[in-house]
Amino acid sequence: MIKKYQASIYVTLRNSVLDPAGVAVESGLKQLGYESVEQVRIGKYIELRLSAANEDTAREQLNQICDQLLANPVIENYRFELVEMSAQLGVEA
Amino acid sequence: MIKKYQASIYVTLRNSVLDPAGVAVESGLKQLGYESVEQVRIGKYIELRLSAANEDTAREQLNQICDQLLANPVIENYRFELVEMSAQLGVEA
Repeated sequence: MIKKYQASIYVTLRNSVLDPAGVAVESGLKQLGYESVEQVRIGKYIELRLSAANEDTAREQLNQICDQLLANPVIENYRFELVEMSAQLGVEA
Repeated sequence: MIKKYQASIYVTLRNSVLDPAGVAVESGLKQLGYESVEQVRIGKYIELRLSAANEDTAREQLNQICDQLLANPVIENYRFELVEMSAQLGVEA
């Protein structure tokens, strides 16, 4: 049986890669008076739904999707969470 | 005593707002052969550190930061997680 999964994917810059947008936000926040803010890093947060026979297949497919399209493995890391959709029906809007 | 917190902030488009980047990614994924992918939504994921006297103050400050700079409340929602830094020393690289 095919199951539906809700995936939340986090794509972040590797620590060794400079994040100019993060630096800009940090400096903006300091100018707004939030002096204590530091180490701002900006990444992407992607939500999607996909169907697969089981969770292992879904994870494998998501790894391929991230490597091929969503993240640039040279400068970015990614991780994701998978929730089977029937298990979260109560949460859906 | 001032405590340090690590914040993870998720900024997402409101459901009623069209997400052209998400539509483009979805169509790209389908062309790559991932036919089952749907409802792709692209948001921002921001990590930062801040200092505050306690968690309530940190939360209040983060709400202001999100409203003022990180999210556009008209079209975006945000949520965040806070972890006190001493509590996750073992996790840090």
